[in-house]
Amino acid sequence: MNKNPSSKEVLTQPERLGSQISFLIEVDKLTNVFRRSYINGGERFENSAEHSWHVALMALTLEEYADCPIDISRVVKMLLIHDLVEIDAGDTLIYEKANRNSLRREEEQAAARIFGILPVEQCAEFVSLWLEFEDKSTADARFAGAIDRLMPILHNYYSKGKSWQEHNISSSQVLAVNAVISQASAKLWDFAQEIIRDSIARGYLRDG
Amino acid sequence: MNKNPSSKEVLTQPERLGSQISFLIEVDKLTNVFRRSYINGGERFENSAEHSWHVALMALTLEEYADCPIDISRVVKMLLIHDLVEIDAGDTLIYEKANRNSLRREEEQAAARIFGILPVEQCAEFVSLWLEFEDKSTADARFAGAIDRLMPILHNYYSKGKSWQEHNISSSQVLAVNAVISQASAKLWDFAQEIIRDSIARGYLRDG
Repeated sequence: MNKNPSSKEVLTQPERLGSQISFLIEVDKLTNVFRRSYINGGERFENSAEHSWHVALMALTLEEYADCPIDISRVVKMLLIHDLVEIDAGDTLIYEKANRNSLRREEEQAAARIFGILPVEQCAEFVSLWLEFEDKSTADARFAGAIDRLMPILHNYYSKGKSWQEHNISSSQVLAVNAVISQASAKLWDFAQEIIRDSIARGYLRDG
Repeated sequence: MNKNPSSKEVLTQPERLGSQISFLIEVDKLTNVFRRSYINGGERFENSAEHSWHVALMALTLEEYADCPIDISRVVKMLLIHDLVEIDAGDTLIYEKANRNSLRREEEQAAARIFGILPVEQCAEFVSLWLEFEDKSTADARFAGAIDRLMPILHNYYSKGKSWQEHNISSSQVLAVNAVISQASAKLWDFAQEIIRDSIARGYLRDG
């Protein structure tokens, strides 16, 4: 027996609002998707809802470091929805040699299902924003992507490299995977590299 | 011994970026502030970071129901920071007869400390936005406040009134506390009232 009222019940509301509410209830599941990043200095894994909030706030706070003009409200919107596909497709460690093609297909199906709960034109808008983020096809998406990469470096630093060590990640991997930050902000990439160098010096991250 | 590197260490960065990063690390603590709302159909308490993400996304999705013109990017920004003061002052159940004056003082001190980590003009901007939200002095703040109230009603509905019952809340209390929704959106207040009526009919909420 389903312990929740089914989404049909709120759909006694005008159809449009009903489907928007169903979407908002569905995305609550993002709080159950756990990442490989430790928060609070290594206390527990972060979930993707918390992460989405934290990077949205980070983008607001660090907007001034974007090298190209950006529309911060689009960046924030992108970051608020960028991980919703993980409700179906799960979180993938950025360092994993996953089959990126099949992951992309899975995520596209997830986007179609989850955003598909919304009214048609709102679905189209969210899917398009998500694809823009995925493809890093604009300055907004590249800045959002840079912020999404910078936060896990900080979480690793503040948990003494806990997640890096658990996955046997080396400094060259961290540098290679996160170099995309430089496409959005030279200053934030300088900062990230300084954190990485300090992490090696402190023994948080394996040099190599 | 502090298990984290101190914020001083990243402050070898130019002072401005260093203080912004210290703020972003400090606010990570919002993931440790637990609310009285159950998520995922009653599985566990929601924390204030997850809540902040969820209401920001809700505002984006339901923007069209605002009765007055609003600037949605300001609404989202407000919702992303509205609970940061809880890091120091804790979460207060909206139905509690707390001493609202002393709570307000505590929250103002929290705002001064937490936003005070930021560069001066950014601190002033965030404090001002937080006060606007608290005082509901603009259409943006009233819409943000309505969204902040609507979500817990939905969480209660989808967990069969679990939190309402645990705190012995009656329908008249729910109606009184949430009537502020009507100041931002007649349609969302109609919807909230329908959910409340249905909650009474299903035995999730005590009528009275």
